[in-house]
Amino acid sequence: MSSTEPLVYLRGKLTPASQASLAIYDAGIVLGATVTDLVRTFHGELWRLEEHVRRFYRALKYTRIPVEVTQADWMEISHELVRHNRALLHPEDELCLVYFATPGELPVYAGAAGAAKGGGPTLCAHTFPLPFELWTEKFETGQHLITPSIRHVPPQCYDPKMKYRSRMHYYLADHEARLVDPAASALLLDLDGNVTETSGANFLIVSEGTIISPTLRNTLPGVSRQMIRELCAGLGLPFVERDFQVFDVLNADEAFTASTPYCILPVTKVNGLPIGDGTVGPIFRLLLERWSAAIGVDVREQFRAGAARRTAGIH
Amino acid sequence: MSSTEPLVYLRGKLTPASQASLAIYDAGIVLGATVTDLVRTFHGELWRLEEHVRRFYRALKYTRIPVEVTQADWMEISHELVRHNRALLHPEDELCLVYFATPGELPVYAGAAGAAKGGGPTLCAHTFPLPFELWTEKFETGQHLITPSIRHVPPQCYDPKMKYRSRMHYYLADHEARLVDPAASALLLDLDGNVTETSGANFLIVSEGTIISPTLRNTLPGVSRQMIRELCAGLGLPFVERDFQVFDVLNADEAFTASTPYCILPVTKVNGLPIGDGTVGPIFRLLLERWSAAIGVDVREQFRAGAARRTAGIH
Amino acid sequence: MSSTEPLVYLRGKLTPASQASLAIYDAGIVLGATVTDLVRTFHGELWRLEEHVRRFYRALKYTRIPVEVTQADWMEISHELVRHNRALLHPEDELCLVYFATPGELPVYAGAAGAAKGGGPTLCAHTFPLPFELWTEKFETGQHLITPSIRHVPPQCYDPKMKYRSRMHYYLADHEARLVDPAASALLLDLDGNVTETSGANFLIVSEGTIISPTLRNTLPGVSRQMIRELCAGLGLPFVERDFQVFDVLNADEAFTASTPYCILPVTKVNGLPIGDGTVGPIFRLLLERWSAAIGVDVREQFRAGAARRTAGIH
Amino acid sequence: MSSTEPLVYLRGKLTPASQASLAIYDAGIVLGATVTDLVRTFHGELWRLEEHVRRFYRALKYTRIPVEVTQADWMEISHELVRHNRALLHPEDELCLVYFATPGELPVYAGAAGAAKGGGPTLCAHTFPLPFELWTEKFETGQHLITPSIRHVPPQCYDPKMKYRSRMHYYLADHEARLVDPAASALLLDLDGNVTETSGANFLIVSEGTIISPTLRNTLPGVSRQMIRELCAGLGLPFVERDFQVFDVLNADEAFTASTPYCILPVTKVNGLPIGDGTVGPIFRLLLERWSAAIGVDVREQFRAGAARRTAGIH
Amino acid sequence: MSSTEPLVYLRGKLTPASQASLAIYDAGIVLGATVTDLVRTFHGELWRLEEHVRRFYRALKYTRIPVEVTQADWMEISHELVRHNRALLHPEDELCLVYFATPGELPVYAGAAGAAKGGGPTLCAHTFPLPFELWTEKFETGQHLITPSIRHVPPQCYDPKMKYRSRMHYYLADHEARLVDPAASALLLDLDGNVTETSGANFLIVSEGTIISPTLRNTLPGVSRQMIRELCAGLGLPFVERDFQVFDVLNADEAFTASTPYCILPVTKVNGLPIGDGTVGPIFRLLLERWSAAIGVDVREQFRAGAARRTAGIH
Amino acid sequence: MSSTEPLVYLRGKLTPASQASLAIYDAGIVLGATVTDLVRTFHGELWRLEEHVRRFYRALKYTRIPVEVTQADWMEISHELVRHNRALLHPEDELCLVYFATPGELPVYAGAAGAAKGGGPTLCAHTFPLPFELWTEKFETGQHLITPSIRHVPPQCYDPKMKYRSRMHYYLADHEARLVDPAASALLLDLDGNVTETSGANFLIVSEGTIISPTLRNTLPGVSRQMIRELCAGLGLPFVERDFQVFDVLNADEAFTASTPYCILPVTKVNGLPIGDGTVGPIFRLLLERWSAAIGVDVREQFRAGAARRTAGIH
Repeated sequence: MSSTEPLVYLRGKLTPASQASLAIYDAGIVLGATVTDLVRTFHGELWRLEEHVRRFYRALKYTRIPVEVTQADWMEISHELVRHNRALLHPEDELCLVYFATPGELPVYAGAAGAAKGGGPTLCAHTFPLPFELWTEKFETGQHLITPSIRHVPPQCYDPKMKYRSRMHYYLADHEARLVDPAASALLLDLDGNVTETSGANFLIVSEGTIISPTLRNTLPGVSRQMIRELCAGLGLPFVERDFQVFDVLNADEAFTASTPYCILPVTKVNGLPIGDGTVGPIFRLLLERWSAAIGVDVREQFRAGAARRTAGIH
Repeated sequence: MSSTEPLVYLRGKLTPASQASLAIYDAGIVLGATVTDLVRTFHGELWRLEEHVRRFYRALKYTRIPVEVTQADWMEISHELVRHNRALLHPEDELCLVYFATPGELPVYAGAAGAAKGGGPTLCAHTFPLPFELWTEKFETGQHLITPSIRHVPPQCYDPKMKYRSRMHYYLADHEARLVDPAASALLLDLDGNVTETSGANFLIVSEGTIISPTLRNTLPGVSRQMIRELCAGLGLPFVERDFQVFDVLNADEAFTASTPYCILPVTKVNGLPIGDGTVGPIFRLLLERWSAAIGVDVREQFRAGAARRTAGIH
Repeated sequence: MSSTEPLVYLRGKLTPASQASLAIYDAGIVLGATVTDLVRTFHGELWRLEEHVRRFYRALKYTRIPVEVTQADWMEISHELVRHNRALLHPEDELCLVYFATPGELPVYAGAAGAAKGGGPTLCAHTFPLPFELWTEKFETGQHLITPSIRHVPPQCYDPKMKYRSRMHYYLADHEARLVDPAASALLLDLDGNVTETSGANFLIVSEGTIISPTLRNTLPGVSRQMIRELCAGLGLPFVERDFQVFDVLNADEAFTASTPYCILPVTKVNGLPIGDGTVGPIFRLLLERWSAAIGVDVREQFRAGAARRTAGIH
Repeated sequence: MSSTEPLVYLRGKLTPASQASLAIYDAGIVLGATVTDLVRTFHGELWRLEEHVRRFYRALKYTRIPVEVTQADWMEISHELVRHNRALLHPEDELCLVYFATPGELPVYAGAAGAAKGGGPTLCAHTFPLPFELWTEKFETGQHLITPSIRHVPPQCYDPKMKYRSRMHYYLADHEARLVDPAASALLLDLDGNVTETSGANFLIVSEGTIISPTLRNTLPGVSRQMIRELCAGLGLPFVERDFQVFDVLNADEAFTASTPYCILPVTKVNGLPIGDGTVGPIFRLLLERWSAAIGVDVREQFRAGAARRTAGIH
Repeated sequence: MSSTEPLVYLRGKLTPASQASLAIYDAGIVLGATVTDLVRTFHGELWRLEEHVRRFYRALKYTRIPVEVTQADWMEISHELVRHNRALLHPEDELCLVYFATPGELPVYAGAAGAAKGGGPTLCAHTFPLPFELWTEKFETGQHLITPSIRHVPPQCYDPKMKYRSRMHYYLADHEARLVDPAASALLLDLDGNVTETSGANFLIVSEGTIISPTLRNTLPGVSRQMIRELCAGLGLPFVERDFQVFDVLNADEAFTASTPYCILPVTKVNGLPIGDGTVGPIFRLLLERWSAAIGVDVREQFRAGAARRTAGIH
Repeated sequence: MSSTEPLVYLRGKLTPASQASLAIYDAGIVLGATVTDLVRTFHGELWRLEEHVRRFYRALKYTRIPVEVTQADWMEISHELVRHNRALLHPEDELCLVYFATPGELPVYAGAAGAAKGGGPTLCAHTFPLPFELWTEKFETGQHLITPSIRHVPPQCYDPKMKYRSRMHYYLADHEARLVDPAASALLLDLDGNVTETSGANFLIVSEGTIISPTLRNTLPGVSRQMIRELCAGLGLPFVERDFQVFDVLNADEAFTASTPYCILPVTKVNGLPIGDGTVGPIFRLLLERWSAAIGVDVREQFRAGAARRTAGIH
């Protein structure tokens, strides 16, 4: 359990990252029947680990992937990986910890390629350094989101409350968004035209002082979204879940996305139109400030410094 | 280009099968945004290769995965793989040739694990010996299909006319089917309750002498289904595409599935009720006979012999 | 097997009609889980009996009501009932023969009312003289149909291809129609706004010489509708099945309904607007004439005479 | 108004139960256009009679069945029936009182069977002893529910807020459930995949201390569900109505059904997966205890004793 | 800016009403792509002008009609128009002020008719005296609403939260309503059978003391509806937004519509059935009284007097 | 009936085009409840006038706009207008003749602006010279279509088989398309994701030699589309109507739109991807050639010459 390169937990073993790969006949590749989760560190500590693990295990139950590792052991493995892998980085870097599980290797597809390596599901945890540079600028400029013609998969097919990797619709939707603006992402509508989420984040709007989230019928119960809810409670800001539509987005006072790697990121343009006055709004700033205070990390500053360091090749 | 084990075409190179694997940050694993196809051999010759390749390239266009290999080259690679890999098998074995393509490795997810191995999509072709033993008995007993509560993904999310691997709904549906009968498979309905397909095959019914297929709104344009259509034309049997429902299935005279590995396989029970008199029907037998004649292989006999040989460990 | 009053086949016995009743805890009453069919005589002969019986048994299979009487025996019972009951009527009267089957008596609901009379499903056949007077005038004036706000039950709930008696939606829809015109009936739309059927008949339109029927997704495969199809074939009139909407109805050249008791009946008004010029059209007249010729009964005349006779109290 | 057997109120008269039956041409049989309700006694007193009667009359209004009995008279008739019928039972037995109303006898269908017995709707009230033995064991083991492929009828066809007897979908859905487990019942989804109710009860889940009910769009406003809501208020447990999906059910801490005969009954398995740890949960126990306290009857004990007594043939 | 006839603001100029017209190739006529709003005066003062203007500008943003007048200027123009036009009327008359905006004149359609009069959108404001006589009687008798077969346009086509003039569905729906009762209006259902709004007003019901409104998914956020919400808050009456269906309407205690010209108007009949006891209810009376008090105008009396005056030709 | 400027038929009179305008309180402006049609000339002769007029009158019937002019008179008026207006143009110019009808002026909205000009519907016919320059280049380059997130209005709201002017969804959809490419138009999907039509034309694809059109559920029965159908019949090319999806479009061999002004125009790009090889295809060329032959006008050449002439200011 020591290596000069990052370690990956894969099918019961710790493996150097450069050797961590999946057989081409793993169900994760053949079926895309994979559930996943993502945790990040703040100052090297995994943030709300238990919530993420609990959500990951809910997805495992729903999909009946018979993982035998307990939640407690999984948390232990998580800590161990992070301890090892973070030691290889610059002390101010942070890690994203990715989980995924698949039904395992499919013997038929393995065929003459040799016996499948072993029965049981494929369970994996791996890390990568948080790429601050991807988002740092958008804290200032905000994101541009596009509602594509592709619709979100409805829960009677498979439920967005699990974090899954059968994400073809997200992939197609993001392509459509980039036709409008290469830097834009898709904001998917459900089959009834309600706003749902982006391919990587929860989406929220602010209207007359109320923070409004789509319902859980259509979206992942995000941990960052939950954090925002708690911050709103502390601030006395109403937070409601309800169906809303593109009209509400275009006429919102503010909009933002919430996702583990960056916490919260402003949306300043949707379908080419400015949200509010097109700049980052006061509620966003307030939430980010309170979030930073709550975790003892100046998030905005960490992204600025981290991006600069990484761009300069320091890590 | 020679090896004592099967070769796999992967990301531009021929690799021994035991070394063919995907980085855990390949988009095929992370997003499930993978398109695929499957061809088989008859007497070692790839059957309707051009049709399969054309279908594979249609999926590539729809998903905008920028594969640079031409269709002609892809056919050449296919032949080459089959020539090499089949030489390693018993002369009466047949091969399944699997294609898949993903958007490629995701640099962000790769992180400190080392540079992603190279840009561009992941394109792969690999083979496995046709597992005759999986289906041989069902040529006599027929299959049992169950309509689950899980619904097929509609084309406004992603289109079933491409062969894709974001197959979470299939996976969940088959779990539901196996609650009724461990040997059963799911027959998925669309969001409006129309019959679509199983997780691995087209589904057809026979009613008063007419072969009825679901429409292409809800199903893969299967090459075996196309073969059946042509056989029907030769036999003067009407073949129609239209929406139908569970009522029609339960009251059909016959039902069967069509899929490349086994051509055509009877369905004798749906939701616990017999189709027709619950035995393999005359239209099925006729189609299988004509199919065998058309390709010069007694399909039923090949499965019987192949399964016996493989069960005996001869290959 | 003789009686001065009509006989009813009920739960295995022939019973005088005045004594034929169902326990209030029969599933037909408690659940409405009843399937049914209706045959009529022409000159005392049951018309297309086999088709009706086959359709009745399809509904039995779909609902899994375990009737033990064979189709052949059921036809025999049908003939026997008609022979007996028709002898009690005026020689020019005709009979409607009604079938229904329910899952049987529910022991729990029976409670202390005494043991349920016996296990097994409730199977019943009974007759009533064809009430010519109900429709005779409409052969001249045509019917008025109204599209109500109530929608037809979709096949993923239960399938209209079986003739069933969970007909609450029909009942509610007809109430809405009668708000417009006490003599009107409802023409139900499906959940997508396609035209389906009335509460008692198939509905067809004529447009530029083509007879157009809704698809079987939404309608009973009526035996009279089938007869029309055959007559059209004989006449060289195209007959097509496809989804159509209220716009097509309002702009049709003609419209009519088809149902066993009256064969075919014109529709001259829909939602208060005339169909064509608001009078009975030439295709209707032609079809009725050919129908009459085919069965050797002048249908129009039979209704005229029968209604006059019955109104005069002669039977 | 006295009899040695239970009395039934039927079409304006009190009739001995053994003679209470419906003409086979009653609209309740022919159309299934029947509305209904069910009340039970505790210690012989009808529980929340007024609420049940009010709900019954709401259904009558919606269906326009022109019952002329006032709500006050109907309550009086209810009391009278129960007084008489309960006196025939063991003093510790309880009664279920069933109401139903249909549009009445259909003259056309009556035909030559004799004049319909009289105009107007068919209104009926009858009783049966509460069959404790049906549920007593499930208080300990919990129920197994299955989500079938059949969907709940949506309110634009007919509204589940009325208690009706056009229940074909329930009947078909329960058949599907029993394919998985002969002791299981169906938990129906709506057309959008939201959880609704079972064929005989409201369904609720507990998640992180909150009791969650489907909305009234899809479910009967159950009187027992209302009682649970009131008990929750007393206990300080949040009770919310919102759409939820199978994912939420499988990951709930507890689940139960609510229905007049048994008050509340645990659900410990859904689609073969345990709910929570698969045993009866603490919130269920607490609610049953408070319910028992509120009505002065130890419900659990009553079922145990009642079932033993009835199984032993004592009544 | 003075005229003996009313002035109209049209495309940047004040024009005498008799000369205010639109080119037949204006997009408002060719496409119906028009957004609108309507304000009224109380004692000559525009009521909640800012709210109406804000709503109008939200619609402008959603439709991207590039109006250049600021909201402040638009309010100024509004006041100016009202000052001028009201001076021409009886001092106790009130004005309705109508706004609309279209994308402007379509050069192609203009063709040889001469150059289009000028670029840019068509922005218009005009007034008409409030026609008290249209509604005064209905304060006593209540309205009759009918649920037609035509459905409301869903927000994925265009959003009802903007006040628009592509109102073909309203027009068709009102035709259907008048088939039942020439004085009735349509109460539209959405595609799922939920109650939405009428062609000119918000619709609300009262059930057990709670005022219930459809959600904003399906309805205009009416200013009068907002006033009712505020009055309810003052009265301690719960006001909730949720989906409800025709069943709820028919069994409501009261129902009413809310619209700027008349504030609030009772609904006493729906689909031919009385709401509550069929007369105007106490909550309606209370709300109207409080509304009158809040604005210092006895609304009911103003309508009575105004209608009498106008009918007598005094204005 | 003579004028140096074009004449417009409006509300019963012929009016010089510069004076033809609609009152701002015409229902065509207030409700957008307008039906329309468009005919063009070839060599000055109105093409398929009768078909267009019949379609216009179907829309009038569906909307119950009580136009009193007969179809025969309307054709006469059409000819008269064209005769007069074309004489004012260059002899090689062609005319578009536009019809529209609205329910007429709304007296309430007219208010004190003066009595509405007269009762009855507003019926209008006007012309404009065919703007060849708008499309001539696209005969070579083809059009770029985009599938927007906005969906087509379904027929249960109002039916696309009538040509209407409640076109807000088209307007919004085209805005979305222009975000991708300022020269692109929208290709709308229906609520189920099927391809329908553009805001101004029918859309067709060619796949393996078959011309495929969406069904009439979702599209206008275009006269040019009908012409293509007839040309296909002459050429022995199969022409089918069926639902298809974006996948089929992207993988079609060719695509084109059909509309009265330009007959048929190629589509070479959809959602940024080339159709076929991205150039104008052989079936398109063949159809245009046959069309030209059928009407005796070289359409392509007419557009080239007409555009050049008009660009040069010659008319």
